[in-house]
Amino acid sequence: MSLFRLALLSCALTFPAAALAQRVLPTPVAPDAKVAALRDAALKDDVAWDIVSGITTEIGPRPDGSAQEGRARDWAVAKLKSLGFKNVHIEPYDLQNVWERGAETAEVITPYPQPLRLAALGNSGATPPEGLTAPVVYFETINDLLLAPDGSLAGKIAFVSNAMQPTQDGSGYGSNGLARFLGPTVAAKKGAAAIVIRSIGTDHGRGPHTGVTNFAPGVAPIPAAALSVADAENLERMVKLGKPVTLHLTLTPKFVGTRPSGNVVAEVPGTDPKAGIITIGGHLDSWELGTGAIDDGAGIAITAAAAKRLMEAGKHRRTIRVVWFGDEETGGFGGIAYAKAHANERHALAAESDSGADMVWKFSTSFAAAAKPVEDRLAVALAPIGVVRGRDAVHGGTDVEPTLALGVAGIDLHQSALRYFDWHHTPEDTLDRIDPEQLRQNVAAWTAMLAVVADAPEEIAPAPAAE
Amino acid sequence: MSLFRLALLSCALTFPAAALAQRVLPTPVAPDAKVAALRDAALKDDVAWDIVSGITTEIGPRPDGSAQEGRARDWAVAKLKSLGFKNVHIEPYDLQNVWERGAETAEVITPYPQPLRLAALGNSGATPPEGLTAPVVYFETINDLLLAPDGSLAGKIAFVSNAMQPTQDGSGYGSNGLARFLGPTVAAKKGAAAIVIRSIGTDHGRGPHTGVTNFAPGVAPIPAAALSVADAENLERMVKLGKPVTLHLTLTPKFVGTRPSGNVVAEVPGTDPKAGIITIGGHLDSWELGTGAIDDGAGIAITAAAAKRLMEAGKHRRTIRVVWFGDEETGGFGGIAYAKAHANERHALAAESDSGADMVWKFSTSFAAAAKPVEDRLAVALAPIGVVRGRDAVHGGTDVEPTLALGVAGIDLHQSALRYFDWHHTPEDTLDRIDPEQLRQNVAAWTAMLAVVADAPEEIAPAPAAE
Repeated sequence: MSLFRLALLSCALTFPAAALAQRVLPTPVAPDAKVAALRDAALKDDVAWDIVSGITTEIGPRPDGSAQEGRARDWAVAKLKSLGFKNVHIEPYDLQNVWERGAETAEVITPYPQPLRLAALGNSGATPPEGLTAPVVYFETINDLLLAPDGSLAGKIAFVSNAMQPTQDGSGYGSNGLARFLGPTVAAKKGAAAIVIRSIGTDHGRGPHTGVTNFAPGVAPIPAAALSVADAENLERMVKLGKPVTLHLTLTPKFVGTRPSGNVVAEVPGTDPKAGIITIGGHLDSWELGTGAIDDGAGIAITAAAAKRLMEAGKHRRTIRVVWFGDEETGGFGGIAYAKAHANERHALAAESDSGADMVWKFSTSFAAAAKPVEDRLAVALAPIGVVRGRDAVHGGTDVEPTLALGVAGIDLHQSALRYFDWHHTPEDTLDRIDPEQLRQNVAAWTAMLAVVADAPEEIAPAPAAE
Repeated sequence: MSLFRLALLSCALTFPAAALAQRVLPTPVAPDAKVAALRDAALKDDVAWDIVSGITTEIGPRPDGSAQEGRARDWAVAKLKSLGFKNVHIEPYDLQNVWERGAETAEVITPYPQPLRLAALGNSGATPPEGLTAPVVYFETINDLLLAPDGSLAGKIAFVSNAMQPTQDGSGYGSNGLARFLGPTVAAKKGAAAIVIRSIGTDHGRGPHTGVTNFAPGVAPIPAAALSVADAENLERMVKLGKPVTLHLTLTPKFVGTRPSGNVVAEVPGTDPKAGIITIGGHLDSWELGTGAIDDGAGIAITAAAAKRLMEAGKHRRTIRVVWFGDEETGGFGGIAYAKAHANERHALAAESDSGADMVWKFSTSFAAAAKPVEDRLAVALAPIGVVRGRDAVHGGTDVEPTLALGVAGIDLHQSALRYFDWHHTPEDTLDRIDPEQLRQNVAAWTAMLAVVADAPEEIAPAPAAE
């Protein structure tokens, strides 16, 4: 790979590739010593660790609609007030059709009897209390399941495997996650009694990866669970030995109706109400299996720690609003509730942190041309901590996507997802997975971003194509 | 990160995000047992290793316009003939203004005398034979160098540092490479006597990373070199201790005029001349410091090994043309010569392998709508070996970019670049950096791609936006 390749990597260039091709020198960006100082001080941050350590130790798992989630909101209010934020409050909303995990066990009955480890998927149906026993039908991928003839799975347990590779940009989750998202609906439509999938994860351990699935309207939920990667590979080997495999599966989750949830909101008030609010945050809820450290204790910690640094650096033009969203995992209802409640406010920007605690390696914005100088300054502010400029479409994430959809500009600070899917949605999502140095780099990236954006004189709006 | 995020990661989905949002099940792709069998057999390939081992052992470094490069062409012709390819021949062209590496040494004179390891950048100017001694002026980034006042570097050695982080998509090279690409021209315009940069690399060793630079028209080349990362960090620490730093620099490269180069071409003839040629390959040249194993012995090996597998599987609709391009490193003149020589031929596709030998993790195409079913089949064929579908703009790379610019469709089979820039353009680019298992996965990915594309009944053309 050579220099021409470099010029072609326009998605990653700090300066336009066209300038390289024409050998026109780019206009340099004036350095901002204040931004640099805030960024570098954040590399010694301890506030983010304090928050994520606190929420995992003092609360632990925070499933949506649960009493634990309620305690997490109260903890969050106290914590954000103690950090000095203004207007700290809960914005409550109701969650419909809340799903609660039950017992979950599985055993191979024949030909090689042994227990398997698995976890029900969110919104899974239940087996009878005593479980069900059925033959396994193996599919290498979701594509193969889609090709199965209608009715061919009647009375059987579909088993969909697909080996997920780690990717820095998390794109492996998109491809492989289809087995979790679509698999249960497809299997149910073809008559299956239940479905098990290989966990959507990149580890090789015994911790199964849960996560939500959704049954299409009119399709009755069937029992649906994810085997740990190790157990899925074991079951795959059994299937490939050629003898019929029979599984006994017990899942006893239930739907418990409507329960309260809520977003926790805190602010660093700005000086210019017309400049638009900067909404940042992560989500307070978590799956029950772990303690919600990387998903998403880290995200609430990083964004609040960065906002606190701006707060302590003096007054800024724009209000910085930290939102610890309630439901993210079961349908993104916290982000939807926020967007509805605040649709009439002027937002300059919305961004979230929800891919763990590993380093930010790339950023992208959806800024319109008038705000491109802001993006140029972001590139200069972020480069010294190893963050490259991307040209990717901005997605925001589940929490802020409904706000972006209102026509608000976004910034994605991409975290390395190379390790994230080893522990995501598993019992292994615990504090010790967080590298304190990388957590600090995240705080530095968010601090630098806020320092550039909060006082930018330019109007910040999204490019038409990004809306 | 949850399911909504999944649906939003549209760039990575095998099926359209819109289908997920609407809960419409995607149309499955019929499996192709022949493609799968070819792919899986390629996971045991030994031909690629034989080629890259051969070129690094029997030829070694192959700088552009050198006698070594000539010997590499002859070796290539013999190798491709022995592998059974048809129409094996050299397409010669001339390289103008060929640059030859000379002596290259540096020492800190004051205040902390010690030697530093560096390598001249391609097209660097020369110091006097006895070297030059001058004070160092430090710049953290290329942006800071651009901000230096005109004339402020007169009689001085500019030193540009920037810490490059590994990225799977190689985007760190684009951002940080600007110091190499633009730095020497900028420093020369501001009157500098010479420039040294931190190597554009992600390692922490003593092997400096060379690579080409280009001086803008009318700017006389100044001595320009890359310090190893370890030496650059040492020099940076010295500068930050506050005393003036003086460097003695000796670089004696020279321009040797016009020299012969050439592309080596081989074919697997197809049955339908109207279906368009599939051109694949890598580059035969390399920098002098290593042996050109990962850059790009691997690329010529992977593409030829895959083409040979198609050849042995019977007749195919489209001609597969393997091109081992001559000059890539000093200006992409091999790719330009190929595109000029073959501009009147109908190409269906052009693709190259030039990011080392680590696994293919993502693919993207520039296909127009009529060829989207081909892309769908590629997604299914590549998923089992861990390759996700991307929606990125296709760049091809230096070798095939001039061909793509003629209006030819492209496929990028993205290799993981996480380790590539540890050794790229250094003395450490040797055979032992190649993981045989990952090399085989590359052959499997290219074999699956060729198996899908070579016999596709659809017309393959690029989408208008991709041209």
